[in-house]
Amino acid sequence: MKEKQKSEETRNRILEAAEECFTRYGYDSTGVAEICNTAGVSKGALYHHFPSKQAIFVEMFETWMRSFVAEMERIRDSAASVPAALLRMVKMTGLIFQTAAGQLPLFIEFLTKASRDPETWKATIAPYKFFRKFFADLIHQGIEEGTIQEVDPERIAKIIVAYGAGLVMQGVFDPEGGRWVDVGVQGIRLILKGIIKEGTG
Amino acid sequence: MKEKQKSEETRNRILEAAEECFTRYGYDSTGVAEICNTAGVSKGALYHHFPSKQAIFVEMFETWMRSFVAEMERIRDSAASVPAALLRMVKMTGLIFQTAAGQLPLFIEFLTKASRDPETWKATIAPYKFFRKFFADLIHQGIEEGTIQEVDPERIAKIIVAYGAGLVMQGVFDPEGGRWVDVGVQGIRLILKGIIKEGTG
Repeated sequence: MKEKQKSEETRNRILEAAEECFTRYGYDSTGVAEICNTAGVSKGALYHHFPSKQAIFVEMFETWMRSFVAEMERIRDSAASVPAALLRMVKMTGLIFQTAAGQLPLFIEFLTKASRDPETWKATIAPYKFFRKFFADLIHQGIEEGTIQEVDPERIAKIIVAYGAGLVMQGVFDPEGGRWVDVGVQGIRLILKGIIKEGTG
Repeated sequence: MKEKQKSEETRNRILEAAEECFTRYGYDSTGVAEICNTAGVSKGALYHHFPSKQAIFVEMFETWMRSFVAEMERIRDSAASVPAALLRMVKMTGLIFQTAAGQLPLFIEFLTKASRDPETWKATIAPYKFFRKFFADLIHQGIEEGTIQEVDPERIAKIIVAYGAGLVMQGVFDPEGGRWVDVGVQGIRLILKGIIKEGTG
């Protein structure tokens, strides 16, 4: 096995072990020693890959975000139009609810730490800014393709992100409270109704 | 001074002292003894009013919610129509951003505890359910007064609450990221556009 490949494997093993420990014991109660034991690596090896426990969590979060973003981009690139893409994207939120529900206490616990540490906080809110830009570009694309009216893309993106974030919040905090994916689709339809060009979509 | 009035005053003094301590030291690092010292009351007096530190926080949260709800009801009862009421309500979110921003680390810290304790968790998500009913009733009122189309009030309420929650989240987590009250107004206008009856509002 090549050195690089081996290093990659160790890194992944640490991430998997950390996720297992965090979920089982909580973020606070998990020590670096615990993660090393579960992963079967030395402290030296762990610190070679990650400067701290917080860095491991941030990496877990970012890995999950990357796969989510890749899926959004796949939808954007394969949908027939921007309105069609938006409707397919909102259906994906069902997947987020499932993933997030089991991790809720862990995620909130991490937010607690992050809210007292400016650097980590920046990493935590980065997805927000990413998605604002993602949707602004998408709305711009819709204007160019002639399916969306001449709206302010940044403004509409903020509305979509606010709606999406609130939807995820309700789905995670109160999964039994509604058929959230259906609610999501209807909300996006309502928003689209106000910005779509007549005779398209 | 009457006994009842004195008891009320002690209770309020405890709540104010708790808020001061929580904000200064964090929820976790504040002990009941700290709150007693700051309020100038005995432990016995504190436990006469509140069974636990958690109960004090829940009461703080509920007091704040009650004043917020009272303001929403005032708007509902004084607005010329349901669409007009919705637009005035979304302008109120500016106030929430201000109040919530300073309390964010504290609130997240409390959520951490709450997410591991089912009873407190119920109290924490209660506002959600309240607002879903509040907006469902409001949309129903709009249908009756003839300003809103024959939509499903529960469904539209969930969309409005999701949007409102996401808006508050963005405003609190990223206050510099946008003019959130303006974004809120435009989003509600967009939603209204899809459900309003032609020629009204």
